[in-house]
Amino acid sequence: MKLVLATSNSGKVREIRELCSEFEVVPYSQIVSAFEIEESGTTFKENALLKARAVFEALGDESAVVLADDSGISVDALGGEPSIYSARYAGVGASDRDNLQKVVDELKKLSLSGSKAHYTAAIAIVTRQMEYVVHGWMYGEVTTTPRGDGGFGYDPIFVPDGFSKTLGELDSDTKREISHRSKALKLAKVVLKTL
Amino acid sequence: MKLVLATSNSGKVREIRELCSEFEVVPYSQIVSAFEIEESGTTFKENALLKARAVFEALGDESAVVLADDSGISVDALGGEPSIYSARYAGVGASDRDNLQKVVDELKKLSLSGSKAHYTAAIAIVTRQMEYVVHGWMYGEVTTTPRGDGGFGYDPIFVPDGFSKTLGELDSDTKREISHRSKALKLAKVVLKTL
Repeated sequence: MKLVLATSNSGKVREIRELCSEFEVVPYSQIVSAFEIEESGTTFKENALLKARAVFEALGDESAVVLADDSGISVDALGGEPSIYSARYAGVGASDRDNLQKVVDELKKLSLSGSKAHYTAAIAIVTRQMEYVVHGWMYGEVTTTPRGDGGFGYDPIFVPDGFSKTLGELDSDTKREISHRSKALKLAKVVLKTL
Repeated sequence: MKLVLATSNSGKVREIRELCSEFEVVPYSQIVSAFEIEESGTTFKENALLKARAVFEALGDESAVVLADDSGISVDALGGEPSIYSARYAGVGASDRDNLQKVVDELKKLSLSGSKAHYTAAIAIVTRQMEYVVHGWMYGEVTTTPRGDGGFGYDPIFVPDGFSKTLGELDSDTKREISHRSKALKLAKVVLKTL
């Protein structure tokens, strides 16, 4: 079965492809021209659904199966920020490094070297017959000292509970096992298999 | 597992209880005071989600599992009406018989004794971790001569494809097998079993 991803983010495409190897995973921009998907929701869940619905409509294919991911990190000491603004915390078009650096800077302003934090992933699936959106969470801490080159986003400053390495240092097999995205995808796959 | 229904409609409660015998099915009004749930959506899907979310919020219980159903009949010769207005086609507070009679009257105005039609059911499930909404359809014809006392809603005028009896005449085992609601619930149960 072909699973169309409502993202062009290469990090997400790679992770989802690894986690959904039983499906043919295709970014939507390989089928229709990429377009701006407004993430106007107030929650991960709403944004994931908005993206999946927008791509489903754009494809104009009643048999399409579209998967969207909206995810981000919530840092306790920053009142839960950057949350749904994780991809644009340092401004629209900011790089992963800029966003990560802003978290580090904000923590340092508070004279903190770390804080409890968690990642949330909302995975939405949209077909003609159904809509499904499910959350996965990963709890841990952020540190103000980035370490490791693996992963993407905030991975170099996130240390999952039970580990001493950051997600940027952990091997991808371990990350696949514990990540918010893989937890959500595991449930999503139950639904995908009913199609 | 306890499954809270976002409905007080006794016909729906009975059907869902029969179709979900592996769960403890409880109408929400047995847990909190019944309240008006505004069905302001423009689709069955939206209304089912609105109802399930409203009840989930009202319960204030993070571990709750809420199921809502929004369903109705679409009559081809009436331009797809009454659709999401099936429960209030003859006006707010109208009885099943009033609504059914209005479909019959509208068809007669067009000098028709029947029309192709289909039932749609949207079943929504809401928990803290996920939202799921799935459709089931049943195709057939409506007739202007009501027959049978079984079922509820428009069942006495709906003849499913492949049958000569109306849903009001068919036994409940047969209805359970072919109904829009049971098709949607079958998929919903796949998701409920992941909880």
